Amino acid sequence: MHRVEEEIARIIKEIGYKEVEDLFAKLSGGKRLRAKLILKIAPLHPKAPLLAAVVELIHAASLLHDDVIDEAMLRRGTPSVNATEGSKIAVMLGDILYSKAFSELVEFDKEIAKVVSNSVTALSKGEMMDVKMAQTFNSDETNYLDMLYLKTATLIEAAAAASAMLAQKDVASHALFGKNLGLSFQIIDDILDITSDETTLGKPAMNDYVEGKCTLPYIYLYHSLDAAAQERLLLSHAKKITSQEALWIKAQLIEHKSIERSFELALRLSNEAKEAVKEYPELVAILDAMIQRSY
Amino acid sequence: MHRVEEEIARIIKEIGYKEVEDLFAKLSGGKRLRAKLILKIAPLHPKAPLLAAVVELIHAASLLHDDVIDEAMLRRGTPSVNATEGSKIAVMLGDILYSKAFSELVEFDKEIAKVVSNSVTALSKGEMMDVKMAQTFNSDETNYLDMLYLKTATLIEAAAAASAMLAQKDVASHALFGKNLGLSFQIIDDILDITSDETTLGKPAMNDYVEGKCTLPYIYLYHSLDAAAQERLLLSHAKKITSQEALWIKAQLIEHKSIERSFELALRLSNEAKEAVKEYPELVAILDAMIQRSY
Repeated sequence: MHRVEEEIARIIKEIGYKEVEDLFAKLSGGKRLRAKLILKIAPLHPKAPLLAAVVELIHAASLLHDDVIDEAMLRRGTPSVNATEGSKIAVMLGDILYSKAFSELVEFDKEIAKVVSNSVTALSKGEMMDVKMAQTFNSDETNYLDMLYLKTATLIEAAAAASAMLAQKDVASHALFGKNLGLSFQIIDDILDITSDETTLGKPAMNDYVEGKCTLPYIYLYHSLDAAAQERLLLSHAKKITSQEALWIKAQLIEHKSIERSFELALRLSNEAKEAVKEYPELVAILDAMIQRSY
Repeated sequence: MHRVEEEIARIIKEIGYKEVEDLFAKLSGGKRLRAKLILKIAPLHPKAPLLAAVVELIHAASLLHDDVIDEAMLRRGTPSVNATEGSKIAVMLGDILYSKAFSELVEFDKEIAKVVSNSVTALSKGEMMDVKMAQTFNSDETNYLDMLYLKTATLIEAAAAASAMLAQKDVASHALFGKNLGLSFQIIDDILDITSDETTLGKPAMNDYVEGKCTLPYIYLYHSLDAAAQERLLLSHAKKITSQEALWIKAQLIEHKSIERSFELALRLSNEAKEAVKEYPELVAILDAMIQRSY
């Protein structure tokens, strides 16, 4: 990971704008999940650290724009660039990181550059779908999972596929691994938004529903409720919920096993991912650690 | 140009999201200056229409984000996506167009992909500088021209350089042509913001100064004024100007020949550009047409 951080630092410096260096330094690097994955899949390839740096920059750019879209004031527990510098700077910093990442992608084979740049189109599409879907109560599981795949799984899928290409490993099984890892990671994240408290999350709990995002537990719950209760659930959609209503929704989610069912899907996707890469125990271990996070 | 529009339509369709097709159809294509330039420089190369399409998509993406940054409600005389769909959709549509353009760039030689993707980093840097500079009254000509180069000339410079690479013509002279074309085009645009009326512009006149943008005429004017008049000029900076103050500023701009001096610089840059490509009369003609626009 040391070499990845070095590559990131070099790329940021190469942009040649002090303002960008300062702003980037304030961003939390996060868990660097995508970089770690790339290094695990192509540990020996000399270009793996550069690929990992490129994917992390793309991820950082997508979060900057994500925070503008969600009007998020917190990111990983600290004030977002959107909050401290304003949405204009957040949009432009994102554009700078995206374009610089693309410039670096030119150093790779066409197939690798294509799979990574395509994933950025997919994640931006997913983000737009997310905005559109939050405008009404979406109760369609398939639409929701399609959006989730585009918005949060395609970049991990691309990272896994591109590093498999570098390492000359099987691309399809690694891509499936990345895709299902991304999907189950996000479903667990959606569950934690409901079950964790504000201190753990670094943002208000049940924030998704307040923002209009009907994540999987709410979709399952909706279909388990009678008409009167469905109406009550809809009344709280996309607005600040009273603590009384929050308690009622939580009780319903538990009673109708909506969280359990969501977790089961995450587990099923994760098992499918493990099966795809069963000959690589270090990849299986990533999934096990992720699932444990949810307890 | 017909083949360019076909390539653009194909690329947009390939994104595979009806929402994006509908939104893109509503955008005015504008003058397609960059595409025309590419076709003039590499008229016979089979990949020239694709390069032109890619550059036009990048330009469209940059305008979408530009309108978010400037909170612009009008674009080419009609309501902007930022106005009709909101800034979130404008940011995401821009991201989709940028990333799709980068995916298409993969089809070109590394040098061409690099020069175009680098120009996107440069233009985003320029956009960020523009935001930063509008926060105070900037009276520094060099800083202003540096920002202008990044924000509006680098993409035209890259378009000219990339098409010269395709056509195996001299890259440096074409790049210089593109750079100076972009710079003088923008300086004339800044002059027109002062000298044209709202109907001609499709947006309010003297809007730049209201937005905090000290374009070249204001910078020249500032240095020509005595301390008391400088103070009066500064009082109107970055706010809605009364028609009385607007008249005073215009009178000062004329008296101190600030517009004339700006135009002289545009002319000098344009002549330098013509000199660089003097053996290509079709390129010289582009510059002549541009300068005429300003009368």
